[in-house]
Amino acid sequence: MLDLAIIGGGPAGLTAGMYATRGGLANVTMFEKGMPGGQITGSSEIENYPGVTGEITGMDLMMPWPEQCQRFGLKHSMVEVTRVELKDDGNFTIYKGDGTTEDAMSVIVCTGSTPKRAGFKGEDELFGKGVSTCATCDGFFYKNKEVAVIGGGDTALEEAFYLSNICSKVYLVHRRDTFRSAPNTVKRLKETENIELILNTTIIEAYGDVMGVTGLKVMTPEGERDLKVPGIFTFVGMNVNNGILMDEKGENAICALSASGNVIVDLKMQTNIPGLYAAGDLRIDAPKQVVSAAGDGAVAGVNVITYIDEKLNS
Amino acid sequence: MLDLAIIGGGPAGLTAGMYATRGGLANVTMFEKGMPGGQITGSSEIENYPGVTGEITGMDLMMPWPEQCQRFGLKHSMVEVTRVELKDDGNFTIYKGDGTTEDAMSVIVCTGSTPKRAGFKGEDELFGKGVSTCATCDGFFYKNKEVAVIGGGDTALEEAFYLSNICSKVYLVHRRDTFRSAPNTVKRLKETENIELILNTTIIEAYGDVMGVTGLKVMTPEGERDLKVPGIFTFVGMNVNNGILMDEKGENAICALSASGNVIVDLKMQTNIPGLYAAGDLRIDAPKQVVSAAGDGAVAGVNVITYIDEKLNS
Repeated sequence: MLDLAIIGGGPAGLTAGMYATRGGLANVTMFEKGMPGGQITGSSEIENYPGVTGEITGMDLMMPWPEQCQRFGLKHSMVEVTRVELKDDGNFTIYKGDGTTEDAMSVIVCTGSTPKRAGFKGEDELFGKGVSTCATCDGFFYKNKEVAVIGGGDTALEEAFYLSNICSKVYLVHRRDTFRSAPNTVKRLKETENIELILNTTIIEAYGDVMGVTGLKVMTPEGERDLKVPGIFTFVGMNVNNGILMDEKGENAICALSASGNVIVDLKMQTNIPGLYAAGDLRIDAPKQVVSAAGDGAVAGVNVITYIDEKLNS
Repeated sequence: MLDLAIIGGGPAGLTAGMYATRGGLANVTMFEKGMPGGQITGSSEIENYPGVTGEITGMDLMMPWPEQCQRFGLKHSMVEVTRVELKDDGNFTIYKGDGTTEDAMSVIVCTGSTPKRAGFKGEDELFGKGVSTCATCDGFFYKNKEVAVIGGGDTALEEAFYLSNICSKVYLVHRRDTFRSAPNTVKRLKETENIELILNTTIIEAYGDVMGVTGLKVMTPEGERDLKVPGIFTFVGMNVNNGILMDEKGENAICALSASGNVIVDLKMQTNIPGLYAAGDLRIDAPKQVVSAAGDGAVAGVNVITYIDEKLNS
């Protein structure tokens, strides 16, 4: 039986693995079907991971992590996990894509959440080259420039406000002419001088050159419009990767989730199930930043050690 | 008036400053009377900050942070803060050591907590060279070696258990022969094979050579004893640096504290006072690691931006 199963190999999973093994857990496996590193490896530039400077890509940033985090004995199993089950004795069974299972005394789930793609022409080709899903990450690259935000939900509005503090102008492109947000938020949106609402509008295409995005063509009720923006931020929802926490019927999660499907944790990254932790973008209130995901991983790793010590000696 | 005052210039304060300024706050000052970098700069080796590898000191690790975190407009005020006051309008007044004050819409307190020194001969000279106050940080450097733990409180016992998973033997040196911890914990302590209790014992001195600690002399009821250990971990209490949160009379804190004096925060690092945040070792449940303090700083920085946006527009 594993001391600890870590599901997911991004910044949270890798850091959790380093802290757990460096803290003396002998039998820790990180399940990650692909290369470790996480979503950030698709990012063309990152400048806000403290301590790592210079013009680097997400791939550059994550390059040394697997070796650093695995040198204390963390094992990497390149297999998909399909489900985590809570057993009657308080341990867990990990169901794997190859049909086998493995038991673990504790689990840290670090499967993240993935922004949905809006589905317009040019989006995939230009993703990470001007098309972004994270204002906190990439907004600053468009300081004093114009950007477009696509979406009309709460997150789109929040991110539009965030960008309006940095960018000279924000075009908010929304397919409807109403917003579901609180009336006060919508009032504020309309009153923010450098946000222009482009409503009842669909996307024709994003276009660019080898350097990245140079514009976005949209179809408004008044006809086609060409926004000459170097940055396009899409906020059309998140896929919260909580599927492995669902029961066999896919109906109920084995731990408490928020309305958005994020895992509810406390400051120790513990869920409401003893021995089950979540870290990184999957948990509630995550700012979706590499440094905070890694911080979560350290917290979870340290607390798992105490959990196991106490369990083995109770 | 400042948008944000950050008190303390360690990993939490620096990262909070980067996220707040990079996110568009124009007027952010970090108050740190000394050089930025924090406690870790006194550490002779750090190997568990993800992404930064090689044999580096805490000073090496923190070297690039101030420039990286200040390039987005964070100002550094080299002055001591003596008190933070909550004003009737919901803003804050920062009282400074030079007798002047400054107002701020929001505050992130990152003043940390400092382990107390035990006060024995050789402790200060060998601190960071074999004398440590952090098992999570330094325990691994003594893998399969013998170490001494000094103290008898809950933290000393927890850290002794942690070290017992890594080290070949742990000598727990305690000046009394009883422990205040739960009976179950004490039972477990006595049953852990590689922990030897050395009770009713005072410290004579730690000694070493240019490479660091080589032993610890103690006075037991049976006479002097010489423990040939390369590592000494002292856990004799923490100074939680919450003084600036106390009211003018020094009686009550302006926000909720735990019994240990740590600031109670939620997952957004917000205290029970709107606009007042805490990040890093000062907050409850902090694992006292650079990466988690930095993660906290990012969380607080991002959430302050939303707080100010909403406040200005409500």
